[in-house]
Amino acid sequence: MLKAGVIGGTGYTGVELLRILAAHPEVSVELITSRGQAGEHVADYFPSLRGHYDIEFQSPEKGIFDSCDVVFATTPNGVAMNYAPELLSKGIKFIDLSADFRIKDIELWEKWYGMKHSCPDLVADAVYGLPEMNREFVRSANLIANPGCYPTATTLGLLPLLNAGVIAHDPIIVDAKSGVTGAGRTATTGTLYSEVSDSFKAYGVAGHRHQPEIRQSLSQITGTNDVGLTFVPHLTPMLRGIHSTIYVQLTDGDADLQSIFESHYASEPFVDVMPTGSHPDTRSVRASNLCRIAVHKLVEGNTAVILAVEDNLVKGAAGQAVQNMNLMFGLPETLGLTSVPVLP
Amino acid sequence: MLKAGVIGGTGYTGVELLRILAAHPEVSVELITSRGQAGEHVADYFPSLRGHYDIEFQSPEKGIFDSCDVVFATTPNGVAMNYAPELLSKGIKFIDLSADFRIKDIELWEKWYGMKHSCPDLVADAVYGLPEMNREFVRSANLIANPGCYPTATTLGLLPLLNAGVIAHDPIIVDAKSGVTGAGRTATTGTLYSEVSDSFKAYGVAGHRHQPEIRQSLSQITGTNDVGLTFVPHLTPMLRGIHSTIYVQLTDGDADLQSIFESHYASEPFVDVMPTGSHPDTRSVRASNLCRIAVHKLVEGNTAVILAVEDNLVKGAAGQAVQNMNLMFGLPETLGLTSVPVLP
Amino acid sequence: MLKAGVIGGTGYTGVELLRILAAHPEVSVELITSRGQAGEHVADYFPSLRGHYDIEFQSPEKGIFDSCDVVFATTPNGVAMNYAPELLSKGIKFIDLSADFRIKDIELWEKWYGMKHSCPDLVADAVYGLPEMNREFVRSANLIANPGCYPTATTLGLLPLLNAGVIAHDPIIVDAKSGVTGAGRTATTGTLYSEVSDSFKAYGVAGHRHQPEIRQSLSQITGTNDVGLTFVPHLTPMLRGIHSTIYVQLTDGDADLQSIFESHYASEPFVDVMPTGSHPDTRSVRASNLCRIAVHKLVEGNTAVILAVEDNLVKGAAGQAVQNMNLMFGLPETLGLTSVPVLP
Amino acid sequence: MLKAGVIGGTGYTGVELLRILAAHPEVSVELITSRGQAGEHVADYFPSLRGHYDIEFQSPEKGIFDSCDVVFATTPNGVAMNYAPELLSKGIKFIDLSADFRIKDIELWEKWYGMKHSCPDLVADAVYGLPEMNREFVRSANLIANPGCYPTATTLGLLPLLNAGVIAHDPIIVDAKSGVTGAGRTATTGTLYSEVSDSFKAYGVAGHRHQPEIRQSLSQITGTNDVGLTFVPHLTPMLRGIHSTIYVQLTDGDADLQSIFESHYASEPFVDVMPTGSHPDTRSVRASNLCRIAVHKLVEGNTAVILAVEDNLVKGAAGQAVQNMNLMFGLPETLGLTSVPVLP
Repeated sequence: MLKAGVIGGTGYTGVELLRILAAHPEVSVELITSRGQAGEHVADYFPSLRGHYDIEFQSPEKGIFDSCDVVFATTPNGVAMNYAPELLSKGIKFIDLSADFRIKDIELWEKWYGMKHSCPDLVADAVYGLPEMNREFVRSANLIANPGCYPTATTLGLLPLLNAGVIAHDPIIVDAKSGVTGAGRTATTGTLYSEVSDSFKAYGVAGHRHQPEIRQSLSQITGTNDVGLTFVPHLTPMLRGIHSTIYVQLTDGDADLQSIFESHYASEPFVDVMPTGSHPDTRSVRASNLCRIAVHKLVEGNTAVILAVEDNLVKGAAGQAVQNMNLMFGLPETLGLTSVPVLP
Repeated sequence: MLKAGVIGGTGYTGVELLRILAAHPEVSVELITSRGQAGEHVADYFPSLRGHYDIEFQSPEKGIFDSCDVVFATTPNGVAMNYAPELLSKGIKFIDLSADFRIKDIELWEKWYGMKHSCPDLVADAVYGLPEMNREFVRSANLIANPGCYPTATTLGLLPLLNAGVIAHDPIIVDAKSGVTGAGRTATTGTLYSEVSDSFKAYGVAGHRHQPEIRQSLSQITGTNDVGLTFVPHLTPMLRGIHSTIYVQLTDGDADLQSIFESHYASEPFVDVMPTGSHPDTRSVRASNLCRIAVHKLVEGNTAVILAVEDNLVKGAAGQAVQNMNLMFGLPETLGLTSVPVLP
Repeated sequence: MLKAGVIGGTGYTGVELLRILAAHPEVSVELITSRGQAGEHVADYFPSLRGHYDIEFQSPEKGIFDSCDVVFATTPNGVAMNYAPELLSKGIKFIDLSADFRIKDIELWEKWYGMKHSCPDLVADAVYGLPEMNREFVRSANLIANPGCYPTATTLGLLPLLNAGVIAHDPIIVDAKSGVTGAGRTATTGTLYSEVSDSFKAYGVAGHRHQPEIRQSLSQITGTNDVGLTFVPHLTPMLRGIHSTIYVQLTDGDADLQSIFESHYASEPFVDVMPTGSHPDTRSVRASNLCRIAVHKLVEGNTAVILAVEDNLVKGAAGQAVQNMNLMFGLPETLGLTSVPVLP
Repeated sequence: MLKAGVIGGTGYTGVELLRILAAHPEVSVELITSRGQAGEHVADYFPSLRGHYDIEFQSPEKGIFDSCDVVFATTPNGVAMNYAPELLSKGIKFIDLSADFRIKDIELWEKWYGMKHSCPDLVADAVYGLPEMNREFVRSANLIANPGCYPTATTLGLLPLLNAGVIAHDPIIVDAKSGVTGAGRTATTGTLYSEVSDSFKAYGVAGHRHQPEIRQSLSQITGTNDVGLTFVPHLTPMLRGIHSTIYVQLTDGDADLQSIFESHYASEPFVDVMPTGSHPDTRSVRASNLCRIAVHKLVEGNTAVILAVEDNLVKGAAGQAVQNMNLMFGLPETLGLTSVPVLP
């Protein structure tokens, strides 16, 4: 039984991680920290966890994680990097669900995240935890940069065609839509029910932090620097779900896109390639670790359209973190992650 | 491993039952019938079940369930009663999630459901499957009338105080709110997104089928015929959830209501009595088999208010059916039903 | 053309008032204050007002309203009372949409609102601006306490039967449901989309500020102190709308409730008594100044059920304020308030 | 006062048209037909219209519209074409909100709409009623093909840049999102609340009827046949609203896109070009006849992004129909259409 710790478990990613770990047969959550809620019972704070967690939030004191095998950070950006050096030095594996270790180019990271990185040397060692792209590296990793929600669905949607070399690297257009939980649990006017419900809007057209993250992965896949990526996120009045609609230009008009996807993902437990002509809806993966994908070759022109959906809190965050943990500790990759999506 | 069959699995109760049974370690779903979808793969019809069910819907031919240990009916009212005699005669246990066997008074049932009952003699043998009220009868039952969604939350909310004899039997006022899945999956104008979203309304004030069902249980609890029950259901723009707000008049002003609830439900695995002063929200039980209850004694007057929430598709339908199945077959009552609620 | 000022126009009540006044043929909004947004164009802050308002928010400096005929306060509780004395002394009529002048009993107000009242003497002069109850007083008022959203629908639902003397004064049970805009536009975790959507809950069962306000009106109507009022509000996942479900005990079983309502409200422009058997939905009054009511006498027992709906931002706030303004200035009561509800 | 008739007023476009016409100072709705609801009071069918319409639905008998100056059709596709010849022969102006007269290429129309056109000769005379493109033709038209909801927002978003000749004609990618009212009021499983809420999906990727309609307009604007248009619609869990996100490739990297939009639409009453950097949300135009547009030139590459929002039932349907009517009868174009958007 692995002993796990969670740093900062009061957000949506935190409660989702606790939900998943409660059902994991090989993990025991030993402690959960929160500066703000220290001393409060976890199950008082999140009534959905009543009967599943009988511990209090603790202050993140030094050494508190010493008995853990693995620690997850579900903190705002800029926090996890302050914990990483000590945890790693003590041989504790660390899975960061925030963005602190996702971007290899430190300057680029510091520009987008607006702060100085406190341990740039560790960034090089961190493994970008998208198992479908980096599985073998994940197995031997000590530090995981768990991917962002948009990058997960988008990269999985592009991987087979880029790998097969049948699409142009430029332009690649990603029109992505997210449920509101992706914006976190901090109280802001912009994410109030009364601001978001029954409305739809784009945001961050001029630039979003997930754009360089996606581009980095696409460059790794292609081995080139010529990816021309337009990424426009939209806020959708729903709780969970990412829908990434991807537009690419085919360079090989005869390519059998459906076969490319099916063979690429044939042995992936968490990527489901839908039959030709499908339109996956986000609810079909609600509360599960799946990414469902459909690919459409249009009748006219060279454009192909890829539709990729996931639950942003599971495959886009906490579920993928547990998938990475399973790999890191030699457990079956799907352990604790096989629940059926909750529909409707 | 129990072999299970499902009659009419194309509605929301059906897909929820299939979701729960897919994760149940002691059940194998052998066949699912549907006249309309016969021949279609279950996982094509419900993409959320892809990877979990590799069978087709079948026509409900005679004898088709002969190899089953247990059969569930998730059909419209008036269908299950046509299957019951044969199934029971063959020694197959039958759990009816519709209303066919819930009302002991046949005349009353026929009035409310607008049809002739085809096997009134079996109604007497049927056990009303609310384990918290009838657990021992459920254990030995062959035919279960699985309770309605409103009756489950409402009866669980009233049981301890009626049992303790501290409230008047009249008036008891139940103001109940349901998510839209409670209205089923048949296409009707009244349940379109564009009719229901961003709006709220009462319905059936003049009379709702769940009123006599609740009254029957309250009469069983009190052993009297003097229960004066007002029941007003409301349609709420949400997918899942029942919230029953119950108003009773205290006859013993000194009664410790919190203690009465806590001691009554101390050993119940699926009823969670919240701390004094709580306001349970429906999402705190989403996709779980729990009923959470809070009781409030008001500062002025003799009125007490009970708040009871459940997921109408789980504790109000498919989860309770599986709980009954566990009891009928001597399995641990909570087997396959311990998943953490999905929040948010 | 009346010159109007608005104090604190950055909340939902504020933007709704600006929407209504923009279409009012006899009012010109001269200035809108906001400490936080001073200097920002109103139409930049609320893009829905682009093309209708070409002014900036101003700091609420002393004397700024001197040229106004009427000033509206759409501020948090405790602010308007600081403006009232000066405005009234200058002969400017003042309509307070907050709670500062609603409760005549100063001690009671101070207990519920947790602050000292700065001008208790003015409370006696203030007219509670529910025209259907106090129309003649409103006409000659200088200071209006605009009613709360819950009290408006609830009082209108009870007025005819209390007035006719056909119901018991105790118990009166009000089970009320509100859309989320009723909670205001301040950023709080509890009103985030991700907390409120697809869920339902009661709140304030132990006590809500609108309970004493409703009770005060009911006592005024009955001329007694024996009203036993239970009031339980619920938060509903919708933007706008109040649905008040009211349970009363009939003392005269032969009373023709439908006739009592129809004759009582026969000449009221903003109260619509629905036909017998109706279930008004909140969307049927969306964005309009209407309160729609249906009354149901149950088949068994003495309980009657009244269903009353309104748009909390219009008849429950800004629309009623304009209705009061019309009366105060001798304009037609319905001027600027006759728009058709927006459905769906 | 114009006398107006409405054919088939029981859908969402119908009730919206009735809402708008009720407030129009120069129109009186004389009759509304519906085969299914004939004999029912319009205000009983749509309670939101109580007090505004005191007529019944009538059967669409021959000659029934003879006294009308203008007739609107808010019917399913394939109905209006059966009324057009007679109405036009009698000198009655006809505004068809369905698709019967939108596509000039009869073969193309018959392919997409799956039926034979009954009066192809009239299609040539019909004016495509997008005033921002065809205003002068609208003024003298007798038969208006009122544009579809997606085409309106999309064409308005592309018009200035195509007209200025600063973008490539291929590829033009339109990722469009619609609220559920766009799917109509017919009861179908796919538009049930329980199917659509809290989820997001694309549909019709392989082909949607609005694609040829948009392409026809783009070809008219460019005067060429080389437009390469990819159009992917998505269903969004909201009532009203279209959000069209448009991706184009700039051919002139120095073009000042903001100026092009602002000058193009400088005198348009219903197109609002937002300031640089804006992200219009659909609620900012709710219940109004506006289309709000923002244009973004990305930092890298040649891609520009245009965001265009409208209320699908107003500028995308009933409001635009009234705008066309105003033009056809020489009334001020904005008459009856200046109401402020309802936010939130």
